[in-house]
Amino acid sequence: MPSPFILLNLKTFREGMGNRAHLIATAAQSVANESGVTIGIAPSYIDLHPISHHFAVPVYAQHVDGWEPGAHTGHITADAIKLAGAAGSLINHSERRLTLAEIESSVRALQAQHLTSVICSNNEVTSAAAATLAPEYVAIEPPELIGSGVSVSKANPDIIRRSVAAVHTVNPKVRVLTGAGIQSGECVKIAVDLGTDGVLLASSVVKSKEPAAVLRDLVSKL
Amino acid sequence: MPSPFILLNLKTFREGMGNRAHLIATAAQSVANESGVTIGIAPSYIDLHPISHHFAVPVYAQHVDGWEPGAHTGHITADAIKLAGAAGSLINHSERRLTLAEIESSVRALQAQHLTSVICSNNEVTSAAAATLAPEYVAIEPPELIGSGVSVSKANPDIIRRSVAAVHTVNPKVRVLTGAGIQSGECVKIAVDLGTDGVLLASSVVKSKEPAAVLRDLVSKL
Amino acid sequence: MPSPFILLNLKTFREGMGNRAHLIATAAQSVANESGVTIGIAPSYIDLHPISHHFAVPVYAQHVDGWEPGAHTGHITADAIKLAGAAGSLINHSERRLTLAEIESSVRALQAQHLTSVICSNNEVTSAAAATLAPEYVAIEPPELIGSGVSVSKANPDIIRRSVAAVHTVNPKVRVLTGAGIQSGECVKIAVDLGTDGVLLASSVVKSKEPAAVLRDLVSKL
Amino acid sequence: MPSPFILLNLKTFREGMGNRAHLIATAAQSVANESGVTIGIAPSYIDLHPISHHFAVPVYAQHVDGWEPGAHTGHITADAIKLAGAAGSLINHSERRLTLAEIESSVRALQAQHLTSVICSNNEVTSAAAATLAPEYVAIEPPELIGSGVSVSKANPDIIRRSVAAVHTVNPKVRVLTGAGIQSGECVKIAVDLGTDGVLLASSVVKSKEPAAVLRDLVSKL
Repeated sequence: MPSPFILLNLKTFREGMGNRAHLIATAAQSVANESGVTIGIAPSYIDLHPISHHFAVPVYAQHVDGWEPGAHTGHITADAIKLAGAAGSLINHSERRLTLAEIESSVRALQAQHLTSVICSNNEVTSAAAATLAPEYVAIEPPELIGSGVSVSKANPDIIRRSVAAVHTVNPKVRVLTGAGIQSGECVKIAVDLGTDGVLLASSVVKSKEPAAVLRDLVSKL
Repeated sequence: MPSPFILLNLKTFREGMGNRAHLIATAAQSVANESGVTIGIAPSYIDLHPISHHFAVPVYAQHVDGWEPGAHTGHITADAIKLAGAAGSLINHSERRLTLAEIESSVRALQAQHLTSVICSNNEVTSAAAATLAPEYVAIEPPELIGSGVSVSKANPDIIRRSVAAVHTVNPKVRVLTGAGIQSGECVKIAVDLGTDGVLLASSVVKSKEPAAVLRDLVSKL
Repeated sequence: MPSPFILLNLKTFREGMGNRAHLIATAAQSVANESGVTIGIAPSYIDLHPISHHFAVPVYAQHVDGWEPGAHTGHITADAIKLAGAAGSLINHSERRLTLAEIESSVRALQAQHLTSVICSNNEVTSAAAATLAPEYVAIEPPELIGSGVSVSKANPDIIRRSVAAVHTVNPKVRVLTGAGIQSGECVKIAVDLGTDGVLLASSVVKSKEPAAVLRDLVSKL
Repeated sequence: MPSPFILLNLKTFREGMGNRAHLIATAAQSVANESGVTIGIAPSYIDLHPISHHFAVPVYAQHVDGWEPGAHTGHITADAIKLAGAAGSLINHSERRLTLAEIESSVRALQAQHLTSVICSNNEVTSAAAATLAPEYVAIEPPELIGSGVSVSKANPDIIRRSVAAVHTVNPKVRVLTGAGIQSGECVKIAVDLGTDGVLLASSVVKSKEPAAVLRDLVSKL
C-alpha cells in the first residue's frame, strides 16, 4: 500500500509566497522525512521552479492548461511546469473550474509529460466522471464544507465512502484524496480509514505560524 | 429496440428562427409520421414554447443552466424550459461548453423536471465521463469534423465504435448520438450500424430550401 | 426631460415566469398608464415574444450575444430578440458578465437592429468605460448592495453622483439607471434627484404578492 | 517625449521558455542599450522572477487577476508578480479576455502595487473604454490581423490613428501601443508616426533563430 499523500495547496495566500513558500516547503520536507508520509506542495507558478530546485518534496502546479506550447498568452502549459521541475498539477480546483473537454486535455497534456494529475471534484457523481479520465488522483471537496472549519471526514463520511466506491467502480487504479476542513491528525486518520489515499488542504497549514507543528499533528495518527 | 433519434439543432441560424422554425418543425413532424423515426427539434429559447405548443415533435432547449429558479439574470433554468413544454435539452454543446460541475447540475436539474438530457462530448474519453452522469443521451461530435462536410460516420468510424463501447461500459442504459458532418441517409445508416441510437445535426437541414426532402433522405436507409 | 425609466428584471425567479410574467406585465402597463412613467420589463427569453405581443410596455432581454446569426448553439442574438418584439436588452448584468469585447459587440448588434442597450456596471470607473460604447443606458449596481435590502440611493449617494458625472463626461447622451436595493418611491425619488434617469430593480416587485401596489409606490414620488 | 516602447510577449511558445527566455532577454537588453529604445519582455509566470533578477529590462506578466491575496487557486495576483520583480502586466490579451469588472480590478490591483498596466483591446471603441480605466498603456490588436503576417500599421493605418485619437480624447495621459503583424523596423516606424508610443509583438522575435538581429531591425528606423 502506498503511503498516504498530503498535498498542501498554497493558493494565492500571502502567507504562502516567497520566503513563506520556502518555510512551508522546509517544514513539509522535515515532516515527510520524519514520518515517511509523502507531503506535496502546490505553490504559485512563480515559486514552482525554486521550490522544485531546492527541495525534495513533490511540487505541483495549482492549475494547468491542456494546450500544446504556442500562442496562449497568460496560460500555463504542461511542458512549462515540467521544465520548472513540477511533479504534477491540480486540475479543475473549485476556484479554477474547467470545462469537461479542458479537464480531459489537461490530463492528457500532463500524461504526455509523465506528470501526475489531481482532478478536483465536488461530489460523488463528478468524482466518477473524473475517474473516467484516468488521472492518478481525484480530490473530492464538497463545496458546502470548503473553508467551513468542519472536516469532510467528520461531517460527511458517507460522501467520502460513496465517492471512493464510485471512483473505484470506474477505475480501481485511481486514488482518492479528500479536502475541505481538514485540520488535524484525527481528520486525516478518518479520511484514510474511509478509504482515501490522503488529503488536500490549504489554510490550516499555510496560515499557521508553525507549519511544521501543524504538519506533525496531521501525520500523527497515520 | 427504440427507434433511432434524429435531433435537429437550429442553433442561432437565421434560417431556423420564427417562420422557418415552424416550417422545419412541420417537415420534422411529417417525416416522423411517415417513417416512424423520432425527430426532435432544438430551436432558440424564444421558439421553445410555440413549437412545443403547435407540434407533436419532441422539443429540446439548446442549453440549460443547472440552477434552481432565482437570481440568475440572462440564464435559462430547467423549470423554465419545462414550463415552455420542452422534452429535454442539449447540455455542453461545443458552442456552449460548461464546467464538469455545471454539466452535472444541469443533468440533475433536468432529471428533477423529468426532462431528457443530451450531453455533448468531443471524444471517446469525455463521452465516458459524460455517461457517468447518467444522461439519457451522450452526443459525440469530434471537433475536427464539425462543419467539415465530412461525416464522422464515414471519416472516423472507429471513434464512434469506441465511444459507444466506452459509454456502455460505464452505463449500458445511456444511448449514444453522433454528429458532425451528417448529411445523408447513408451517413445516418452507418452511424446506426456502428451502434449509435441516432444523430445530432444542424446545417444540412436548417439551411436547406427543402428541409422535408433532406429529412426524408436522412431516414431513407433506416 | 424624458420620463424616468423603471426597468423590471424578472431574472429566473419562479415568480416571474409564465402566468406571473403576464401578471407583472399587466401591473406594469396599468401603472405606466396611470403615472406616465415608462416601465419596462425584462422577462426570460421564453416570455419575450408573448409579453411583447400582448402588452404595450417595452420588453427587454436579460442578455444578448453580439454575434451575427449562425452556429452559436445555446446563445441569443440581437436579431432573435428583435424578431421576438423586444425593445432592447440588458448587457453585462452582474449575474451574466461579459468580456469588454463582447459588451462592445452586443451594443453594436443591438444598434444594428435599432434596439436599446442597457449596459450594467459595478462602479464609477466601469460606468465611464461602459459609456464610451455609446449605449442608451448605463445601469450601475454596486455589488456590495445587490440583494442587501439597502438602497444604493440612500446608502451610497456619492457613488451615484460621481457615476452620473463620469458617464456624462464621457458621453452626455448616455442616460444612467441605478439599481441594488431599490424598494420604495423614496428610493426612486432620491435616485432621480441624484441625476439618474431611473432605476433597475427585481425582487421587490417580482416577489411581491401585489406587484401593482409596489409599482404604484415606486412611482409615487415622481 | 518618452522613448518608444517595444514589448515582447513570449506567450507559451516553447521558443520563449527557460534558456530561450534568457537568450531573448539578453538580446533585448543588448539592443535596448545600443539603441536607447525601451524593450520589455513578458515571459511565462515561471520565468518572471529569474528574468527580473538577472536582467535590467522591464519584465511584464502576461496576465494578472485583480484579487487580493487569498483563496484563489490557480490564479496570479498583483502582489505575487510584484514580489517576482515585475514592472507591470498585460491585461485582457485576446488570448485571455476578461470581463470589464475584472479588467478594472486588475488595473486597480496593479496600481496599488505601483505596477504598469497594459490593457489590450481589439478596436477603436474598446480602446476608448480601456482608456477610461486609466492604465499606463492601451495596446490595440485588431483581431483580423493577429498572426496574419500583415502589419496593422500598414494594413489598417486608420484604425491606429482613430484609436490614438479616441484614447486621448478620454485620457491624454494614456499611451497607445499597437500589435498584430509587426515584423520590421518599417512597421514600427509607421506605428510611431501614426501617433503610438510603441508596439506589442510576439512570434517574429520569439520564433527567430536570432532574436537580437530581429530586434535590431525593429528599432532601426526610430
